[in-house]
This record gives sequence, structure tokens and C-alpha cells, in this order.
Amino acid sequence: MEASSPPGRETVEFARIVAFTDGVFAIAITVLVLSLDVPPDLTGSDLHDQLVDAWRQLFAYFLSFAVIGRFWIAHHQVFSILHDFDRRLMALNLVYLSLIVLIPFPTELLGEYGGETDSVVLYAAVVGTAALLGWGLLRAALRFGLVEPEARATIGPTSSGMLRPALVFYASIPVALLSPVAGQLVWLAMIGGRRRA
Amino acid sequence: MEASSPPGRETVEFARIVAFTDGVFAIAITVLVLSLDVPPDLTGSDLHDQLVDAWRQLFAYFLSFAVIGRFWIAHHQVFSILHDFDRRLMALNLVYLSLIVLIPFPTELLGEYGGETDSVVLYAAVVGTAALLGWGLLRAALRFGLVEPEARATIGPTSSGMLRPALVFYASIPVALLSPVAGQLVWLAMIGGRRRA
Amino acid sequence: MEASSPPGRETVEFARIVAFTDGVFAIAITVLVLSLDVPPDLTGSDLHDQLVDAWRQLFAYFLSFAVIGRFWIAHHQVFSILHDFDRRLMALNLVYLSLIVLIPFPTELLGEYGGETDSVVLYAAVVGTAALLGWGLLRAALRFGLVEPEARATIGPTSSGMLRPALVFYASIPVALLSPVAGQLVWLAMIGGRRRA
Amino acid sequence: MEASSPPGRETVEFARIVAFTDGVFAIAITVLVLSLDVPPDLTGSDLHDQLVDAWRQLFAYFLSFAVIGRFWIAHHQVFSILHDFDRRLMALNLVYLSLIVLIPFPTELLGEYGGETDSVVLYAAVVGTAALLGWGLLRAALRFGLVEPEARATIGPTSSGMLRPALVFYASIPVALLSPVAGQLVWLAMIGGRRRA
Repeated sequence: MEASSPPGRETVEFARIVAFTDGVFAIAITVLVLSLDVPPDLTGSDLHDQLVDAWRQLFAYFLSFAVIGRFWIAHHQVFSILHDFDRRLMALNLVYLSLIVLIPFPTELLGEYGGETDSVVLYAAVVGTAALLGWGLLRAALRFGLVEPEARATIGPTSSGMLRPALVFYASIPVALLSPVAGQLVWLAMIGGRRRA
Repeated sequence: MEASSPPGRETVEFARIVAFTDGVFAIAITVLVLSLDVPPDLTGSDLHDQLVDAWRQLFAYFLSFAVIGRFWIAHHQVFSILHDFDRRLMALNLVYLSLIVLIPFPTELLGEYGGETDSVVLYAAVVGTAALLGWGLLRAALRFGLVEPEARATIGPTSSGMLRPALVFYASIPVALLSPVAGQLVWLAMIGGRRRA
Repeated sequence: MEASSPPGRETVEFARIVAFTDGVFAIAITVLVLSLDVPPDLTGSDLHDQLVDAWRQLFAYFLSFAVIGRFWIAHHQVFSILHDFDRRLMALNLVYLSLIVLIPFPTELLGEYGGETDSVVLYAAVVGTAALLGWGLLRAALRFGLVEPEARATIGPTSSGMLRPALVFYASIPVALLSPVAGQLVWLAMIGGRRRA
Repeated sequence: MEASSPPGRETVEFARIVAFTDGVFAIAITVLVLSLDVPPDLTGSDLHDQLVDAWRQLFAYFLSFAVIGRFWIAHHQVFSILHDFDRRLMALNLVYLSLIVLIPFPTELLGEYGGETDSVVLYAAVVGTAALLGWGLLRAALRFGLVEPEARATIGPTSSGMLRPALVFYASIPVALLSPVAGQLVWLAMIGGRRRA
């Protein structure tokens, strides 16, 4: 397969990569609900207390839904300006997806142990690294000459829109080492960014 | 990406949004089966009793399958009359999906604790809010000018068909506070609606 | 939407129904692996015993993979001869899918309690009913005039190929009431059928 | 359906098989994250210890993500040179997928019991067999005359690139019987292969 000409945007192969990637995003975002568990054999009042406590799990669920959703939109933007694909980008895309798929794990941790430093640090590290790899995917596509020439001029906002989550989540790690709650407050810096990205 | 013209219905981007949305619906509806659990290490007669009790879980499973299936058909109708898509609708679509994906959680709760007020109220709140957001998605598409002009005249039944589940499930909440069983009986008002929607 | 002309085979709507259905099949078949569980905190020799016992779970896994795979191929055949789709077939398709998605539940039961009558009966009832609904889907498509005229002559083998699993699994239920093992041996009558279907 | 002419590459049927296969790969790779579990009710320091121990689970997760990702790329290559599809290849494809979908099970085992011979042997057996079946799929497509004529000359590297994982993982089984750690070191022989495949 090495010697074959690049498959190009209109082929079944490009469509398969896009469909596979969208499928992985769709499944990763849906798997988040599995972090919300229902303990068996509770009495009525214990169930009520349990559900009141579940608001922390719900916070983690909606946070990660927003994060993965935003990453999907950003990935969508990157792919919409590619005119071709090669094996290297395919491999990088898989590395990127391995971090996206991982997100439900720190999400469950955050929902269960949101007050612990370890949970907040691990969550920020996974999400920050996913964002960084997404940015790297865009840079690699540029370097490999896979981006449509007319799209290169307008790529600045997309690129910085992808770096922003990496910076915000990495910056929250040292803060979380001092206070887990303060670390999570740093994440609020994402809200404004969604509009600009 | 901000300055680019709207992508339009025929593009890869529109197809990706549709595929992603369908993927999320398909996964959410399938994840419902995970709420049916098999306890290990039972003896024959205990297993039998357990399976007899599982009919409540099966009721919750089929109820949510019908709910998500119906929402998918309604979403299908909304998307079939769009002639375009923009970032705002994409974001609203994600918010809507975050409620759809949540449904397996109150489903498991309803299957496990169907006789408790908390379960019935939470189920009705999640499903009712999902329906309301679906209706909001349609209203937003209309306001943003993304609906095909010739489809605007016939949009009435679709719109009210989406409001109906919101009203039925919200109306069941005060009833469920008095009696969980009566609250669930209110949901029967959905059956006639499927035909008209 | 009621008054609109039928969408036809080439439209985005038809493609969405096919994609949704394929997605549900793909997820249901993959969720089967979740029935294989790894108990924590075992010692080396206990782990070995556990894995030897896991062959029953593996049998249930491969059986259901073959069953869902076969149903998917049959569904594939039905859809390949449709020239159109309507709301009634869409609703029937959802009812059919609700049984397909359910299969991982009796699969887990069969893997855990394969020697119990209840497990074998429930498995046979769910799989048999799914097959019957698949056959009903084909009959309904014929009655509603949604099948391509030239395909009607050749529909006999597809139709009987879909009834066969229903008969085999239903027939195993009374046998399983006498002996769970004998009930499962009845299922072997499927093997020849795969070739003919 | 038996007598119908082969559906050909451009049809809805070919696209459905590709989409179903991609869907199964996408779900299997995403289900891997479910092997990372969060034990409830730990104190802060116990949680820290638990997360340090989780690096073994993370190793198993990333290993299997790479394995399934690589198999998907290889499958992608095989399908890109098919000009047609028949029932036998469809059945073989399902048999192949049943091994791919199984991978999350030995992955969880490896993450939980990576130091045990049983875990390493079972992992190697499942992954090696999946690779062998992938190679068999390519050979079968060649034998059935389903490969594009112009692609036959260049098929050597694809073919040997698919046999390599089978050989590496099978070869690690006798080594793992002597030492589980040494068995896992044999898997490092895959790294060079990715470049050549």
C-alpha cells in the first residue's frame, strides 16, 4: 500500500476514517453515562440521600460531555480543511483518540472522589493531554501538506482554540495540588473560550 | 472558521453531524440493556425469584427504548427539514444529546426502585427536559433561518408532537409526589400521541 | 410531515434509518463482551479455576455473536429489497431492534447459569421472538408495498430463512423445561440453516 | 437471495458492511475504557495507592488500543482492495470480528492480573488468533476472486504485515509459560512492524 497515491478526500477510505473517528467520539461521549451508578438494595430514605450525592456525579458527567463535545467540534473543524490523509496522520489520529476514549475513566473518578487532589489532577492531565494532541494533529496535518491551501490563512483561530483547553487544564494541575476545589474553578476559564474557538 | 459560508445540507460536515447524532442515539438506546444485571452465585430457586423480579427492569427497559426511539424519530423529522446547519445549532444539538444520553441512568433507577417517588420524579424530569430541549432545537432552527421554506407550513404537527412528551412527563411529577404508581400511569398519555406525532 | 411523499431509497432519511439500525446491531454485538467479567482479588490458582469456568461464558458469547450476526445478515437482506420506507415500518423496525438489543441480557444469564432451566428458556424466548419479529418485518414490508416488485419472486428463501430461527428456539423451550442441556442441543438445528438462509 | 449477482463495491450493501465493521471496531476500542474501574468508598491515601496501581490497567488499555487500532488499519487496507463482497466473506468477516470484540476481556484480565501466566497466555492467544483470522480474511478474498486485479501485485506487504502479529503473539505463549514478564517483552517485537506493515 505504501506506493499508492494518496487516497484523497472523496474516497471511501477518507469517509471510513471520518466515520470511525465520529463513531469513537459518539461512543466515548455515551459511555459517560455508565459512570452514574445505581446502588442496589437501598431503602427509600437512603436512596434519596444517594441521589442527592449523585449531583457530584452529574456535574462530572455534564462537564465531560461538554469537553468531549467541544473536542469533537474542534476535530470536525480540522478534518473539514484536510484535502488528504496519510498513514502518519491516521496513526496520530488513533493516538489522539486513545486519550479521548480514556476521558470516561477520570470522569468516573471525579464523580466519585471530586474532593480529592488525585482525581482533579488526573482529570486535568488526561483532558489537557487530549487537547494538546488535538492541537498536534492540526500542526502535523499542516506540516505534512494535508491542509487545503485556501484554509491555511484562516487556521489561526482553530489552532489557538485547540491550545486553550490544553493550557487551562494543565494550569489547573499545580492549583489542584494546593486545593482540589480551586483547581476545578480554573476550568471555568473554558467557558468564554467556547464562543471564540 | 467563523467567516466561512454555511456548509449546507449536502456537505460532508452535515453528514458528520447527522452520523454523530444517530450514533449517539443508537448507543444510548443500546446501553439500556446494561441496566439489566445478572447477580452471580444464586441457586436455582433464587435465580427464578430474581428473574420474576426482573420484569420491573424489563418494563423500564422497554419504556426507555420506546422513549428514545420516539425521540430519535422526532429528531429525524427535524433534521429532514433543515437546509443548513450552524455552530449555534450544533451546540444546542449537543446539549439536547446530553439529556438523551442521560436516560439510561434514570432507567436503571426506575428498574431498581420503581416504587419510590425519587425514581419516578427523576425519570420524568430527565425525559421531560429532553423532550423540551428537542422542541427548543426545532424552534431555534426556525429562528436561525435554517429550516427549508416549504417545510415551514407543515411544521405545526412536528412541533406539537415534540411538546407533548414534555408536558406529559412534567405533569406526572406532581402526581408522582403523591403516588409513584399514579405518576407512571400518567405516562400512558404518550401512547395515543405516537400515532399523531 | 404526514402529507409528505414517501422519502424513497436514495434519500438521507433512508440512509439514516439504515445507519441507525446497523449502529444498533454493531453495538448490541459488541456489548456481548461485557458479559465476560473478571473477578478482582483472586490468587493465581483461583484465577486459573475461574478462567476454566469462563468457557461457559465464552460459549454464550460466541453463540450470541453468531445469532446477532446472522440476524444482521438477514436484516441486511430485507433492507436490500426495500424500495421505500414509511412510519409504520420504522416503528416495527424499532420494536424488532428492542429485542435484538435485549439479547446481551439472556446471554449473560446463559453464561452465568447455563445449567438452569430459567436461563435456557429465557434465552430461547428472547432469540425466538427477535427472529419472529424479523420475519414479521419482512411480511409487513410486503403488505405495505415497500418491497421492490422484481424482488418479490425470490423472497421465499429469505422469508423461511427468518422463520427457521424462530421455530428452532421456540421448539427448544418445552425441551428445556425437561432438561436445560437438551434444550441447548436443539439449537444445533440452526447450524445447517445458516447455509440455506 | 442466492441467485442474485454480486452486489459490487458501489452499492448500499457494500457500504453497510463497511459501516458495520467500522462500527464494531469503534465500539470494541472504546469499550476498553470500561476495564478501568474506580473502586468506591476509598479514603484519600487508599485512593492514591489505587491510582498508582492503576498504571498496570492503563498499560493494558493503551496496548489493546494500539492492537485494535492497528488491526483496524490492516482491515481498512484489505477492504480498500476488494472490488466485491459475497456471503462467504461476510461470514468470515463476522468470525474475525468476534475475536476483535473479545479483546477487551483479556485486556481487563491483563490489567488486573498482569503478573499471572494465565492472563498473558489468554491475551496472546486471543490477539494472535484475531491476527491470524485477519490474514485468513485476506487469503479468502484472494481465493474467492474478490480482490481488484491491479492490487494483487502489491498485496505481499499487507499480507505479511498481518501475519506478523499472529506470529509474535503466538510465539509469546511458550515464553509466558516460563515467565509472564518475558512473554510480554516478546510483544515489543510488534513495534518495528508497525512501520513496515
